[in-house]
Amino acid sequence: MITNNNNTSNDNNTNNNTIHNNNTTYNTNTTQLYDPEILLYGIEEQYNGTPLSTHINKNHTNPKYLPNITLPPNIKSTTNPNDLSNTDILIIALPHQYIQTIQTFKKILKPNITVLSLIKGFIEHDTHFELISDYLNNLLNCKTNVLMGANIALDVSKSISGNIKYKSETTLGYILETDRILLYDILNCNMFKVTCIQDVHGVELCGSLKNVISLGYGIVDGLNCSGNTKVAFLRNGLIEIKKFMKTFYPETSEATLFESCGIADLIVSCCSGRNYKFGVSKVTNNLSVDEFEKQIGNQKIQGVGTVKCLVKFLCSRNVVDEFPVFLSVYNIFACNVSVESILECF
Amino acid sequence: MITNNNNTSNDNNTNNNTIHNNNTTYNTNTTQLYDPEILLYGIEEQYNGTPLSTHINKNHTNPKYLPNITLPPNIKSTTNPNDLSNTDILIIALPHQYIQTIQTFKKILKPNITVLSLIKGFIEHDTHFELISDYLNNLLNCKTNVLMGANIALDVSKSISGNIKYKSETTLGYILETDRILLYDILNCNMFKVTCIQDVHGVELCGSLKNVISLGYGIVDGLNCSGNTKVAFLRNGLIEIKKFMKTFYPETSEATLFESCGIADLIVSCCSGRNYKFGVSKVTNNLSVDEFEKQIGNQKIQGVGTVKCLVKFLCSRNVVDEFPVFLSVYNIFACNVSVESILECF
Repeated sequence: MITNNNNTSNDNNTNNNTIHNNNTTYNTNTTQLYDPEILLYGIEEQYNGTPLSTHINKNHTNPKYLPNITLPPNIKSTTNPNDLSNTDILIIALPHQYIQTIQTFKKILKPNITVLSLIKGFIEHDTHFELISDYLNNLLNCKTNVLMGANIALDVSKSISGNIKYKSETTLGYILETDRILLYDILNCNMFKVTCIQDVHGVELCGSLKNVISLGYGIVDGLNCSGNTKVAFLRNGLIEIKKFMKTFYPETSEATLFESCGIADLIVSCCSGRNYKFGVSKVTNNLSVDEFEKQIGNQKIQGVGTVKCLVKFLCSRNVVDEFPVFLSVYNIFACNVSVESILECF
Repeated sequence: MITNNNNTSNDNNTNNNTIHNNNTTYNTNTTQLYDPEILLYGIEEQYNGTPLSTHINKNHTNPKYLPNITLPPNIKSTTNPNDLSNTDILIIALPHQYIQTIQTFKKILKPNITVLSLIKGFIEHDTHFELISDYLNNLLNCKTNVLMGANIALDVSKSISGNIKYKSETTLGYILETDRILLYDILNCNMFKVTCIQDVHGVELCGSLKNVISLGYGIVDGLNCSGNTKVAFLRNGLIEIKKFMKTFYPETSEATLFESCGIADLIVSCCSGRNYKFGVSKVTNNLSVDEFEKQIGNQKIQGVGTVKCLVKFLCSRNVVDEFPVFLSVYNIFACNVSVESILECF
């Protein structure tokens, strides 16, 4: 046996974190620097006749979205926006369709807080679109950080028990060095490895565009194509993500595609994500988005909105022909073109 | 529906192919420029008491390696090396363990033929290794081309029927423009899309190193890790392939990793390749390489030899600590370290 003396797995971080990190299983209470309480704001929902906030606060479970998981005791659920008035770090994880609701919090939140967005998707305008981080920057007068990666939520929650078979990675896109240090310290642990890169737009584009490819991959898998065919579709999808970034966000880095938010998130999403499952169901039982979302407990299929916005933008720039994979997914999900047509786009 | 007017899917080719390509289902007899006969040389094997060459020549089947497939009629099997004396294009697809046998053909082959290698693996020397293409260049005094990609053979053979659900891609690494034109013409068709890049070493390294990652991925999958964990391993493996190429073959291009030979072949091999399956079996029943190879009809597990050669080389350069994924795979397959140790390397 040859021994590896150096731990080189964090080489991708721009700098080493200067704040002590104690590599606990999960980081909800890693150091004495932070208030131990983590406030979880959400609109009230019922589960088996009991409000979800009660399940979370009394039983430390979220039976609707994270069944069979015991949550850390320092997570407290609230449905009152005013409770966020003392927040120093705001992590936003709502579906992009509800992004406008953040306006409610604008007057409640303190100035100069650290904002971290987990939202995938675009904000649609007439002939262009806006990235969520840019929208939040304008709305909250901040420099929004983003977190995206190959981390299906239910599997991440299972890692709370410390079972190393559930470790995962994520990519933090940041602007300010102070935010990088702070967010790395509260998020990184041996079960959830954070790599920090200074490419917010690149990270966010990877996270949003991969949902479009996952939709199409679901179709290709639903059609029972060979492994070769499926991965050819995935690769061609990746090439279009790369081309889109290079063309319209030339400040983004191709290296971002090698991070967890890039190729890794694309693979996981294509294998098991919601958009993938909706793609499969499009072949097998042709449900509408609304019907499918209802079937999966009202979780949102973000790829459909994203691809509509995306193709509208590409058409306005007269370059839609250069993105045959995006176009094919659009034609199937927005125009009911036959699912088999996807095999012609690559 | 929005129509895509341009076929942009071949954009990655350096130049358009100037020879007519008629996009037939398979290209064994595309144009009148070539001798229609394709000679298939191999050491004789028996299947159900009949020589494999008889199955191929009389029944147009290869029941041992390609069951239930009807081969094109212009493929002729031979076991006599002298039959290759008129060959203009030599495609070599033997396991790298048998590469020395090519010496037999040296005096039989015409000079200045076009050589295409499909071989994955390295030739081991004391403190370094040699790429197969370099070995063939020296031996045959030629400029070897290589072909690698996400194309599991059985699925490729199924595409002969024209079923679009079995289309696949490949990457041709070439040096001479004349070879590129010739090989693209005989290989590319709508079921097997060829992208040509001038990076022979890069293509070959991708093809060989992915077998090491597939071995490890088999372990991670065999341990029933989450999807997040599996893809984190795959991504960290990809990063090491990239780092190895950059460090020891700086003339190779990072762009090659986005081709079929790169990320796509890695994904397919990790999902269904022989090395992956051997990795899984290491966890479930701990067979030796020999036992496993026997079980799969004496097909070769190339990743084990590759990782031994690779780690020996990295040790000789005193950089093995910088490649924790390669090292972990080595420790498990060459030193019988516990399979669970793989979860510590990323």
